[in-house]
Amino acid sequence: MLFTQLSLLTDLYQLTMAYGYWKNNRHKNEAVFHLFFRKHPFKGNYTIASGLEYVIQFLKEFKFSEDDIQYLSGLKSSSGDNLFEKEFLDELATLTFECDIDAVPEGTVVFPHHPLLRVKGPLIQAQLIETTLLNLINFSTLISTKSARICQAAQGDSVLEFGLRRAQGPNGALMATRASYVGGCHATSNVLAGKLFDIPVKGTHAHSWIMSFDSEMEAFEAYAAAMPGNCIFLVDTYDTLEGVKKAVEVGRKLRVKSYEMGGIRLDSGDLSELSIKARQILDNNGFPNAKIVASNDLDEYRIKELKDKGAKITVWGVGTRLSTSYDQPALGGVYKLAALRKEGREWEYRIKLSEQKIKVSNPGILNTMRIFRNDNPVMDVMINEGESKELKECRTFEGEEISFDVENGELLLQPIFRKGKQIYHPPSIHEMRNRTLEQLEKFKTIENYPSGLEKGLDELKNELIQNAKK
Amino acid sequence: MLFTQLSLLTDLYQLTMAYGYWKNNRHKNEAVFHLFFRKHPFKGNYTIASGLEYVIQFLKEFKFSEDDIQYLSGLKSSSGDNLFEKEFLDELATLTFECDIDAVPEGTVVFPHHPLLRVKGPLIQAQLIETTLLNLINFSTLISTKSARICQAAQGDSVLEFGLRRAQGPNGALMATRASYVGGCHATSNVLAGKLFDIPVKGTHAHSWIMSFDSEMEAFEAYAAAMPGNCIFLVDTYDTLEGVKKAVEVGRKLRVKSYEMGGIRLDSGDLSELSIKARQILDNNGFPNAKIVASNDLDEYRIKELKDKGAKITVWGVGTRLSTSYDQPALGGVYKLAALRKEGREWEYRIKLSEQKIKVSNPGILNTMRIFRNDNPVMDVMINEGESKELKECRTFEGEEISFDVENGELLLQPIFRKGKQIYHPPSIHEMRNRTLEQLEKFKTIENYPSGLEKGLDELKNELIQNAKK
Repeated sequence: MLFTQLSLLTDLYQLTMAYGYWKNNRHKNEAVFHLFFRKHPFKGNYTIASGLEYVIQFLKEFKFSEDDIQYLSGLKSSSGDNLFEKEFLDELATLTFECDIDAVPEGTVVFPHHPLLRVKGPLIQAQLIETTLLNLINFSTLISTKSARICQAAQGDSVLEFGLRRAQGPNGALMATRASYVGGCHATSNVLAGKLFDIPVKGTHAHSWIMSFDSEMEAFEAYAAAMPGNCIFLVDTYDTLEGVKKAVEVGRKLRVKSYEMGGIRLDSGDLSELSIKARQILDNNGFPNAKIVASNDLDEYRIKELKDKGAKITVWGVGTRLSTSYDQPALGGVYKLAALRKEGREWEYRIKLSEQKIKVSNPGILNTMRIFRNDNPVMDVMINEGESKELKECRTFEGEEISFDVENGELLLQPIFRKGKQIYHPPSIHEMRNRTLEQLEKFKTIENYPSGLEKGLDELKNELIQNAKK
Repeated sequence: MLFTQLSLLTDLYQLTMAYGYWKNNRHKNEAVFHLFFRKHPFKGNYTIASGLEYVIQFLKEFKFSEDDIQYLSGLKSSSGDNLFEKEFLDELATLTFECDIDAVPEGTVVFPHHPLLRVKGPLIQAQLIETTLLNLINFSTLISTKSARICQAAQGDSVLEFGLRRAQGPNGALMATRASYVGGCHATSNVLAGKLFDIPVKGTHAHSWIMSFDSEMEAFEAYAAAMPGNCIFLVDTYDTLEGVKKAVEVGRKLRVKSYEMGGIRLDSGDLSELSIKARQILDNNGFPNAKIVASNDLDEYRIKELKDKGAKITVWGVGTRLSTSYDQPALGGVYKLAALRKEGREWEYRIKLSEQKIKVSNPGILNTMRIFRNDNPVMDVMINEGESKELKECRTFEGEEISFDVENGELLLQPIFRKGKQIYHPPSIHEMRNRTLEQLEKFKTIENYPSGLEKGLDELKNELIQNAKK
């Protein structure tokens, strides 16, 4: 993977706070933070958790190098002093990651306010890793969700991810490709992602291939001669339907050599009308199995529109709008302190106030219990693992009280690290992708899916809000 | 830098085309491609070129590793054959980059249709590098432009880039930070970017600092004790104006120890109203120089709005909307073939047709001549360096004919590589940033700035369009 030596990939304030905790001798107090988001992206009704494998890679290698310490020792405050004392930098240099991490496996359907990831450990460490965790989880989760939405719109047709050229940098692209696959895409054009993550790669030729020949026919024939088993002809360089006819001609010649033309690709114009006419030409000439690949600013909205118009597209090439999540390029995940304790003391629960109760962060050592009925999920209940109360009622965010039976519950957060040691080994990317597909299949009522706080937790929260307002 | 061993970071179709060129013995034909965009981002009237240093790093290291070749040798076509013959992979394994590259220096104001970068060299090589060049230039240029717009809205106030936690992956964030600085930002919160790119870093504390103490006052005092020379207090955890009053109290105590409080930070609520009231409290209590930093979904539109409302903000912390370029997360840069020749033959010019003439790609070996009057740029003229005609008239994209004098012209594309050897060494990032600021200062008429094709080039283009339509 690509995420090593990122310990300095953090906001400076994490380091100045770490320094402050250390100066105030609070850095070893035990803290609990949760990473969660407050709203589904894309005005949607689900989110696909993703990015955990990167987090594992990052935390396994979490360590400040000599070089990092050297850099930090040169930083000055605005008054001209060194920002950090040498003794603190010595502490950083010898810091070994020793937190507990619990997280939702990649490819899990998740809901707002519930923790995607929980960190429990020395305050200084939990604070120092905040920014990178957010960076890794926010973007992956965003793209896996976008991908799942696009694949749902394609109703089982193949979806290819083509976004590399306009993605946000090289690993913006690589992460987008990986997350797209976890979310359900079938393949990518990104060869390095194919190599690094074991994702199928697809591709044939571009307009520049056609333009480098004196005619379209010559270009198709030369391509067919070179790669007879990988022919999807891009037909829109000059006149799309004329292009389709030429593809048919070359397809016939391929058959003489016992190869079957894969199909054609449309990259401009009215994709529904052109695909319908192209389908007729292909069918009438004995190519009923030839694929019609389409690309050009596609996303879930555009795919639905084209499907509604009866487009005869069989493979969807989705680029910029998937890999940059064009209509919402960031997920607003946050990371909030929820509990603290000094050595040998009880947990003190913490909340961050806000005008609306739903935006007040949740206190405790949280997990989510997903309740099932007949093997289908029916409700997500946030619980406080720091208390051993009987769990039987949920107050949903909509204000309903619903009773549940823990026997039918399954905890979403899984143990990933214990005392800094990795104890969870992620499944293959193909299993993650299957998890997404299977989960989406099982949610019968994903719209208005009941979700809330276990009653005791909700009461604890109310109490803390009252205290804070005093 | 971070961009090494990215030779496989490409669309598969670049490799299948490379294979096709090789099979058809065209791979060594000399080709010219240009990288350009068709529209300023953000409905704006300028674009800041950026990302060249990454391109140089990428091309210097351009080479397929054994590992890459191994991966490619395992790829199959849909018919089950190996996608690539062994002899072709041997060719790739020994490929040494030998193109000429010309490009616009980072921090240059640029306009649609004009080349940001030109590649001249063996067709196979020019094709193989397309996707990575687009990825690197598109994103950097987008962010440097966004940053310049935000800095212009801030009218000289400091702008800090805070976007790491919601950026598109680790180097999505690093590239965004670097490009933001090139575009005019003053500093960043991103420590690794500070270290790698020599960008000033800034930061103090977050809400979690406050929440980890029993009271806000205790939290401010503990922070001031730890870092007296770096105190910007985040005042909105409980009640913003009460927070400002507490900051003032701690500021007084700091003065006893001969330190001056830096200021306060607002991160929620009505930023114009709160900043005005906070300013009054600070001024009335003897802190007229205390800064008021504001953050919370800021961008150029929001900053203008706040300025218009009389907000007393002196430092702008800009995050997600800058680092993901939220309102337009991708620049649509393209890479088009413009000329080809076989060994010992004349150049054959190429165009890619489109419905509108302005969207037809431009033929030739292009450069841009920027015409100056009294040291200020007055027009950009695209010229064909492949022809040695007298240059004296420009046909602008708006259809005007304007004469110019080459004596007052300066070519924008600079030689970067010759025969694969780097001959240009980028200036420091601080010089790039200065270039942006100086250039923007000099454009008096950036709206409707005249831009077009040299008349002979325009005639060549018309001729090629006529021929292609036949």
